[in-house]
Amino acid sequence: MCSKFNRLIRFVPQSNPESILIGEPIVKDQDVGLATYENKLVEALVFSGKSVLEPGTATDKVEAVKKLLSPLEVGEVGTIRCIGLNYHQHANEVKMAIPDIPVLFMKPATALGNPYPEPVVLPFLTQKDDCGDFESEVCVVIGKSCKNVSESEALDHVLGYTASNDISSRAAQFAQSQWCFSKGFDGSCPIGPCIVSTGLVPNPGALHIRGLKNGKQMQNCSLNDLIFSVPKIVSFLSQGTTLLPGTIILTGTPAGVGMGFDPKEYIREGDNFAVEILPHIGTLISTFENEK
Amino acid sequence: MCSKFNRLIRFVPQSNPESILIGEPIVKDQDVGLATYENKLVEALVFSGKSVLEPGTATDKVEAVKKLLSPLEVGEVGTIRCIGLNYHQHANEVKMAIPDIPVLFMKPATALGNPYPEPVVLPFLTQKDDCGDFESEVCVVIGKSCKNVSESEALDHVLGYTASNDISSRAAQFAQSQWCFSKGFDGSCPIGPCIVSTGLVPNPGALHIRGLKNGKQMQNCSLNDLIFSVPKIVSFLSQGTTLLPGTIILTGTPAGVGMGFDPKEYIREGDNFAVEILPHIGTLISTFENEK
Repeated sequence: MCSKFNRLIRFVPQSNPESILIGEPIVKDQDVGLATYENKLVEALVFSGKSVLEPGTATDKVEAVKKLLSPLEVGEVGTIRCIGLNYHQHANEVKMAIPDIPVLFMKPATALGNPYPEPVVLPFLTQKDDCGDFESEVCVVIGKSCKNVSESEALDHVLGYTASNDISSRAAQFAQSQWCFSKGFDGSCPIGPCIVSTGLVPNPGALHIRGLKNGKQMQNCSLNDLIFSVPKIVSFLSQGTTLLPGTIILTGTPAGVGMGFDPKEYIREGDNFAVEILPHIGTLISTFENEK
Repeated sequence: MCSKFNRLIRFVPQSNPESILIGEPIVKDQDVGLATYENKLVEALVFSGKSVLEPGTATDKVEAVKKLLSPLEVGEVGTIRCIGLNYHQHANEVKMAIPDIPVLFMKPATALGNPYPEPVVLPFLTQKDDCGDFESEVCVVIGKSCKNVSESEALDHVLGYTASNDISSRAAQFAQSQWCFSKGFDGSCPIGPCIVSTGLVPNPGALHIRGLKNGKQMQNCSLNDLIFSVPKIVSFLSQGTTLLPGTIILTGTPAGVGMGFDPKEYIREGDNFAVEILPHIGTLISTFENEK
């Protein structure tokens, strides 16, 4: 789908901490997330609209970012779609068979979270079982309503891409057959730092994703390891089902999740995690604190 | 939670087919759904509010029902929660172990459907595999936001109950490990005919549910066969997770689903299905037609 922007962020400007703006960041690639994490100034060219779904057009105003927000808000994303087991190396890592069709689970919209500085809160039961895990993922944002769309037409309905982290509570995940409970806690789906248009990323299969826990590289993979491509996923999910504008789809995580290590590399209070997707999308940074 | 109503319907009145009203039906128990199915007149005492979540108070106006709608609308329900395998006899029927904790899967809000006369549309892939199935379920409606709520306080956050049908596409369901895709199609979650307050149903465990396919009784069970009670389910789902007002929770289906029969009793175009929950809730009637 044709957009009037390259990259957009949703943010609170320094000039008015009560307001929320949409704008094109005036920095390159992963600098948006990293710069806010390192308290370096990010500026953005303000757009006239109030939502990345209807961004309007560029104004002549530049604003400094006080706080970076998820590119879409809770009320816009509807039910969050997530694909499990979508990288060959990850399926091998968790010793599960390569699926024949995409494996779909869902998170409620209340799972949506902002990037740094808003922390991801680890719920009591994740703390109790000490099993909070990360999953770096490319997130597809639907821009135009679609149903029963073919693979060849699927990308016409995509607005763009952002980074996401499918925060999981592993003990709860393996305590039942379905995954929605263990991955659906409040804030378990941070997205950001910006949404990148399909104009800038015409082929999502050319993206590269890395996950870094406290600066240490845990995940490092090209999207050419995907089992099901982005057009295939969008087409599949739209069968019999309307995907509304704003629907976000997490496309699965590559090898290197915390539970794959010995000892486990689980997430605890005080940790930070960076999901870097290049080119253009940049770095989604999350810090973690315990529910109290 | 304390409500100002006993039973509420959302409906299009005969006096103004462009408007939608909330009102207390002036009929008894299952008569609401059956009366509209048989084209008998249902009247309702109109409430001042626009939503069952904020119904306002009774006016002095009585209106005849032209069309019955789902008690909540798509924009109100958020992500739909569903409990799988929650009746002992059903777990036996499908030869699955009794779960230790509630099995949660989700449907997107777009799955919400109206009662008769709006048909449930069977998607192409359900038709292709000839495996559309019914699941009669009691549906809990959250009225007050809650998170980490205890079992003993859970019902304080419930607005009331309605009937629902968890329409399923069995081939797709068993083609992947997660159930969200096969049960999330547009219209796969009709609810109705009315929402009954917790004042009228203080103990949901005393409800009785029946499912009738083309008038033939397929399901017939008391909620005392539930593995996890309504307070247990609400408490469990609220762990680490905010349940917003309007959230609906399908509580599982009793024995007697179509796939349990030999030959299978699957749903096809032209069939009708009635979910009857007594006392007070009444009958949710659905007819079926093929996606074309």
